[in-house]
Amino acid sequence: MKRTRPSSRISRRVLLSTAAVLPTLPGLLSPTAARAQAPAGALPSWNDGPAKQAILDFVRATTDQTSSSFVPPENRVATFDQDGTLWVEHPLYTQAMFALDRVRVLAATHPEWQNQEPFKAVLSGDLAAVAHFTEKEWTEIIGATHTGMSNDEFLEIAGQWLETAKHPRFKRFYTELVYRPMIEVIDYLRANGFRTYIVTGGGQEFVRVYSQRVYAVPPEQVVGSSIVTKYEMRDGKPVLMREPMVFFIDDHNGKAIGINLFIGKRPYASFGNSDGDREMLEWTGAGAGARLKMLVYHDDSAREYAYGPAGGLPDTKVGTFSDSLMVEAKAQGWTVISMKNDWKRLFSFE
Amino acid sequence: MKRTRPSSRISRRVLLSTAAVLPTLPGLLSPTAARAQAPAGALPSWNDGPAKQAILDFVRATTDQTSSSFVPPENRVATFDQDGTLWVEHPLYTQAMFALDRVRVLAATHPEWQNQEPFKAVLSGDLAAVAHFTEKEWTEIIGATHTGMSNDEFLEIAGQWLETAKHPRFKRFYTELVYRPMIEVIDYLRANGFRTYIVTGGGQEFVRVYSQRVYAVPPEQVVGSSIVTKYEMRDGKPVLMREPMVFFIDDHNGKAIGINLFIGKRPYASFGNSDGDREMLEWTGAGAGARLKMLVYHDDSAREYAYGPAGGLPDTKVGTFSDSLMVEAKAQGWTVISMKNDWKRLFSFE
Repeated sequence: MKRTRPSSRISRRVLLSTAAVLPTLPGLLSPTAARAQAPAGALPSWNDGPAKQAILDFVRATTDQTSSSFVPPENRVATFDQDGTLWVEHPLYTQAMFALDRVRVLAATHPEWQNQEPFKAVLSGDLAAVAHFTEKEWTEIIGATHTGMSNDEFLEIAGQWLETAKHPRFKRFYTELVYRPMIEVIDYLRANGFRTYIVTGGGQEFVRVYSQRVYAVPPEQVVGSSIVTKYEMRDGKPVLMREPMVFFIDDHNGKAIGINLFIGKRPYASFGNSDGDREMLEWTGAGAGARLKMLVYHDDSAREYAYGPAGGLPDTKVGTFSDSLMVEAKAQGWTVISMKNDWKRLFSFE
Repeated sequence: MKRTRPSSRISRRVLLSTAAVLPTLPGLLSPTAARAQAPAGALPSWNDGPAKQAILDFVRATTDQTSSSFVPPENRVATFDQDGTLWVEHPLYTQAMFALDRVRVLAATHPEWQNQEPFKAVLSGDLAAVAHFTEKEWTEIIGATHTGMSNDEFLEIAGQWLETAKHPRFKRFYTELVYRPMIEVIDYLRANGFRTYIVTGGGQEFVRVYSQRVYAVPPEQVVGSSIVTKYEMRDGKPVLMREPMVFFIDDHNGKAIGINLFIGKRPYASFGNSDGDREMLEWTGAGAGARLKMLVYHDDSAREYAYGPAGGLPDTKVGTFSDSLMVEAKAQGWTVISMKNDWKRLFSFE
């Protein structure tokens, strides 16, 4: 389902210097336009700079009735990728961590898994093998851990896991590993009349388990990947059973398709961090008027991780930020957020 | 995709007498519960009776903070079928009328259709044949008229048609043929904090063309059937192209599935008029607390049409209200709205 882009011939070295230059590029609006003063207290975890300024300029342009870019409140839609954009995605997507833990729990009733890949690798703690699981192997893991129960049962299981599981490096609940600066952007946009949607390549139902609590984003504003569900009667009551079959992949092209399918309006602002978000930003940018397109760039190995053109981490297929994405970001005038330079602090617990 | 129910052995005659009794059945709440007085001016196009009372009782029970059935505003979701529930669906679904008109327009560039079924029947005005088109024949008609253009182009074409086409009997624009009493219910629920969704077996994008204008229901609150769309670049700009392939059928089982997929919350109130709405009402009724489940029953051949157990019209596959649906409505305590007895007036233009 993933569209392959022609790989760029531009070397990582060139891109790294490009990236270093990006933060000094002008923001969304013309550099000659008067810059709005930051409303007192807005975006406190952001350092002053082009990324913060782009957000402030965008909000002013779209909410000031005298602006030519004014957007009526009913059309104010902002979309956010989740993994790597709103919370930590390394060393593996949180939902993958959940799936691996579920394999360990379910192994008690699946003795055959001890000698059967890909389960064997999980159970023996072979993390190197896990890091190189193919899509087919992940499909087996997801099938064994995410299907065969009702949707309500799944929500319950995932909810319980999130209350106990902790991130291997930060030793914190996964829901604590949301980026404070991004929560501030969500709140700031919402305070200015925007409806904020999560548009995730991850499982729609998994994200719904905590989106209200963590982001104040209700279930109906979560667009994600999904599997087939089947309507069945159980003891005279209807249930939706989760089937081992993909229904919709909300990633790459699927993000633009999913936005149209679920929202039916083109976003005025969208935020991503990887190749999977490219089409969402393209789709956003193709609309008229002021449109905010931002990419979170993981260049902070000290406080979090550095990957993509910033290098540093082996490719674990998480949050791929290709050279060509950086090229397109520059060509299209998308704003790249440097985690290292633009964010004063990363997490609320700091 | 349609689940087949075992056909009921109960004769139409028995059902007709059942239907005659239904309006005297108690509403949603216990008959011993004190009945709320109708707020002055609420639901003016409804005659006093159990259907109107069921709506008033439900709203009081779910919005009164002292009620054991109080529902916090964020969970107040109401879902409405469209064809036959919110507007006239006879002699054919409006979207089918649109498709037939499109065949006539597109015939200019398709000379071969003059001798090719199912197009030939449409072009020669053989309405009897059209009334008996199979699903396969409709699929061909929909494929020829609803796909092969971008989604934006489709919205434009459908919008233009709605501004000119008129209903063969009422000689009114289709958007004028919405039921005034149902608009009042939508408004009344919305005034009481409910978010109102359309959940239609019809095309999601077709309904989005007019849902805001006609029902004040925005695109993101329209759940419907959809075809596959494809993300493509045209002159450097992304478009979503409509492909001749079904993506999701939001009917029967699909309505419960679609509600969970798009909304992620179980409705507290739902309104339908045909077998295709059965699972939506079951899904609504399976939730705890006060739940309003209503079926619009077309028994008014003078002001509109009489069909289903009320008989009168030949089966055109539109809005099938089977005997078994009436049996289930009675067994489950769903409220049947008699168009003839419960509605003072049908349309705003009357």
